[in-house]
Amino acid sequence: MTNPVLVEVLRGAVVESAHRGAVSVFDADGKPVWEIGDTARPVFPRSAVKAIQALPLVESGAADAYGFGDRELSLACASHSGEPAHVELARAMLAKAGLDETALECGAHWPSSHDATIALARAGSSPNPLHNNCSGKHSGFLCTCVHAGIAHRGYVGAGHALQEMVRDAMQAVTDAAHRADDRATDGCSIPTYAVPLRSFALGFARMATGTGFEPERAKAAKRLFAACMAEPFLVAGTGKADVALMEAAPGRIFVKTGAEGVYCAALPELGLGIALKCDDGAGRAAEVMVAAVIAKLLHEDKALAAKLVEQANPAIESRIGAKVGALRPTAAFN
Amino acid sequence: MTNPVLVEVLRGAVVESAHRGAVSVFDADGKPVWEIGDTARPVFPRSAVKAIQALPLVESGAADAYGFGDRELSLACASHSGEPAHVELARAMLAKAGLDETALECGAHWPSSHDATIALARAGSSPNPLHNNCSGKHSGFLCTCVHAGIAHRGYVGAGHALQEMVRDAMQAVTDAAHRADDRATDGCSIPTYAVPLRSFALGFARMATGTGFEPERAKAAKRLFAACMAEPFLVAGTGKADVALMEAAPGRIFVKTGAEGVYCAALPELGLGIALKCDDGAGRAAEVMVAAVIAKLLHEDKALAAKLVEQANPAIESRIGAKVGALRPTAAFN
Repeated sequence: MTNPVLVEVLRGAVVESAHRGAVSVFDADGKPVWEIGDTARPVFPRSAVKAIQALPLVESGAADAYGFGDRELSLACASHSGEPAHVELARAMLAKAGLDETALECGAHWPSSHDATIALARAGSSPNPLHNNCSGKHSGFLCTCVHAGIAHRGYVGAGHALQEMVRDAMQAVTDAAHRADDRATDGCSIPTYAVPLRSFALGFARMATGTGFEPERAKAAKRLFAACMAEPFLVAGTGKADVALMEAAPGRIFVKTGAEGVYCAALPELGLGIALKCDDGAGRAAEVMVAAVIAKLLHEDKALAAKLVEQANPAIESRIGAKVGALRPTAAFN
Repeated sequence: MTNPVLVEVLRGAVVESAHRGAVSVFDADGKPVWEIGDTARPVFPRSAVKAIQALPLVESGAADAYGFGDRELSLACASHSGEPAHVELARAMLAKAGLDETALECGAHWPSSHDATIALARAGSSPNPLHNNCSGKHSGFLCTCVHAGIAHRGYVGAGHALQEMVRDAMQAVTDAAHRADDRATDGCSIPTYAVPLRSFALGFARMATGTGFEPERAKAAKRLFAACMAEPFLVAGTGKADVALMEAAPGRIFVKTGAEGVYCAALPELGLGIALKCDDGAGRAAEVMVAAVIAKLLHEDKALAAKLVEQANPAIESRIGAKVGALRPTAAFN
């Protein structure tokens, strides 16, 4: 099946480009509440599932052993912009386990924050693995290894004990088999598994509610969600859509972006999980989609919904800052 | 009609994302030679038509009056990376007309070349309008104004005499009416008009052959194409797809990218023009499409076709440089 157009890109009054995609909203009992497009198609969740991948950090006792609070846990769930606060916190997390950035196997890249990149260059520096947007997650992985007494070298490999813990958590939360045949490698070198999009909607509803989880897992999931919603900047960075969405209604909206146009989200008060993917992998469109879905689901809070609708309709500006176009969600969200 | 999937993005063995689009190949007599998808749909050509927009620079006599050779003409047709060679040449072009960067109305942005951005920041500098990827085109516009005795202030406006010259050239070359209703504003503040995609395929076939043009226009068009093919680096920049394509067969391939997934191209030896647009606006997919189309059209040169097929199948790497995926054209190109 061909997924519907979910986002249009306007220049002047003309639709210049269009993005298709699929959206799944589930409750924690496994009931699809709202679905658009083919939600059974396998999708790599990429970074959108970092909160699930962080469960072993909490469940193993590592987070408590190292005194991690909301800030550290949110960074463990983050795709951060490589701003100084992110980099220093990742460094401090590693130090708690007696490690430094040389233990990170995620690779280095310039900060996704343009301002942070310019500042780093002006200081005569170059990026190291702490600037990698996944360094918080990897620091969490390493802390889990050290605390659990697992040799951390090679922790990114699919056969490593740490990645097996992560896969077990992913399978249990999403109720979807994560098979070797559907495995590929994420940008930060860890395995990523393609499973039906709707599995993630169910998984995030369960993460938000604890439904079907053992008490320890339910507690860990709520703790991770609460951390991210309390420290949205650390989950993303200055000017990022995820920060704006979580700050729009503190404690009521959890969102996490992933590469190639994926979003996972949850609305704890409604007990709902959300997963979506833009077919072509565009982040700009996925940001519109997630704001549009949440605006619709929280429509009863009119002031909040208005704010979310604004985020779902961002302007496109020329190089002199004039508004020359906009993105907008299509009627598929009505 | 729904355009077909033309490019797939693989991660491991799984198709992670997909890009739809339309492709039109015309000969200079107006005959469609090969078309995929809806080629009648209006499309903003954006920067892909800079060679047509540069016709007044040559036809007005400005290029000769200022002694512009291949280098200056290729920069006038460029979406450059803001590397030092681009910036200095734009500055020199303006100086010929007694102007400097304060006359540019395109706005400033950091170089699209990451290395150039880092070097600029390390030098403690910030970008000015000369770093704008369109500064060569705008310098050409300004030189045309000064040479023709037209007051240059406001030269980006749709009502300005310079933009009327550009629109006249666009209409004549593409045989498509450029109406105010289909006008929007490009990122560099000049007007852009949505006309059927196939009009650009015809227009570029005519630019390459001169068919149907007055002798002066035919000469100007060939001169601009020859300049770009002789100086591909100046049309784009280090590591850019356009450079690799034009360098793959010097003098035989003209290509020019435009924002939102557009390409215009021409194969002078075959007398063909090519225009394509990725529906979702992705440049990565448009690059695959244009390489795949040209590989097919030039299939008789087996060594060249093999090089182009390689460009149509770029690898995706992790942050440590491991190959984790690839882009590939679909069977729609067979």
